[in-house]
Amino acid sequence: MARILYKEKVLSKNEELAAEVRERLATRGVFALNLISGPGAGKTSLVERTAAWAWGRVRTAALSGDQATENDAVRIRSAGIPALQITTGSECHLNAGRILDLLDAPELAGIRLLLIENVGNLICPAAYDLGEAAKVAVLSVAEGDDKPLKYPALFQRAELMVINKLDLLELTNFQLDQAIANARKVAPHLEVLCLSCRTGQGLEAWYQWIDDRLDRS
Amino acid sequence: MARILYKEKVLSKNEELAAEVRERLATRGVFALNLISGPGAGKTSLVERTAAWAWGRVRTAALSGDQATENDAVRIRSAGIPALQITTGSECHLNAGRILDLLDAPELAGIRLLLIENVGNLICPAAYDLGEAAKVAVLSVAEGDDKPLKYPALFQRAELMVINKLDLLELTNFQLDQAIANARKVAPHLEVLCLSCRTGQGLEAWYQWIDDRLDRS
Repeated sequence: MARILYKEKVLSKNEELAAEVRERLATRGVFALNLISGPGAGKTSLVERTAAWAWGRVRTAALSGDQATENDAVRIRSAGIPALQITTGSECHLNAGRILDLLDAPELAGIRLLLIENVGNLICPAAYDLGEAAKVAVLSVAEGDDKPLKYPALFQRAELMVINKLDLLELTNFQLDQAIANARKVAPHLEVLCLSCRTGQGLEAWYQWIDDRLDRS
Repeated sequence: MARILYKEKVLSKNEELAAEVRERLATRGVFALNLISGPGAGKTSLVERTAAWAWGRVRTAALSGDQATENDAVRIRSAGIPALQITTGSECHLNAGRILDLLDAPELAGIRLLLIENVGNLICPAAYDLGEAAKVAVLSVAEGDDKPLKYPALFQRAELMVINKLDLLELTNFQLDQAIANARKVAPHLEVLCLSCRTGQGLEAWYQWIDDRLDRS
């Protein structure tokens, strides 16, 4: 019981900070996506691809969460956009306070698109609003098509599920239609895009999805 | 600060319960492994393979953790050993109390080997002792060779790292020697086995590792 009350208190404080982030992003005209997946599903690769697409088109920056190392921010900077690493230590997710702390960083000045790459964890990050416009769940073909059923919370809170690593489809027993059916069973509203960051297959539809959302925001 | 104190309290209660689990397992001569990985790295497949090997050799049962569904326990039962599902709801890891509650289940009577498949999460389960003899970290080739650096806690607490999905090696940029070097950088003591649950490659060494540990326990 103490545990539930404590968690509610933490989440309620987070909601307050997330509202502040959301308001400040809106004032500046920044559209923010919160990318969430298990470790190694391809969030960083998706940010790298998006950085290359965004270059000269939409001013973009990234915030990248991990328990340790600056590796992801370094990778993303090489792809041509400013990126800041958030190392969380023992924490298994980003929270709105960490985002708020960075909103005035010079790397984020004048941007229109903010890509937030959460800590690699299919579970805990789903509960923490970061003030984003939308959560994007990234699922890798290598992980199995049953994951939306086993870890429903993320898929219920995301607007879009990106199924990545399509290039591995033939080497796994992942059934694309089954994965989509499983996701829609727990989250009927969910939009779905299938792609491969490695080969580039399906990325145009992802860029189009961002473009449409930018137009509407 | 309140957060740190609260977490310490939860972990300290868990340590007490884990000690009780460990004592009861020792009394009964049960050797327990706590398998931890991100979602879809292949814990269930490893348990299925191990079940087939154990049949007629070592009396074995499994406990399988997920946020929702009985899918994994059903899969494992089909492989020929008793399996109980632990659905954790919003919780992102198993804890010793959940194991303690099941120790007297008829499915666990007379077993020598207990395979505990934790919730698919590379982060949170590492902090919770379940009373196991050893933690085994499972890393999939599809996840990337940098994961031990980014999420060091699990690798530091595990005795063994199993690198699974060797059959996907050529289709990824995963460097086997780099993954092992990264893991040993944060956890110099770590034993390593490389295998593919899909093709069967490398599984003999895993069975041998269990056999050796059973002999010594």
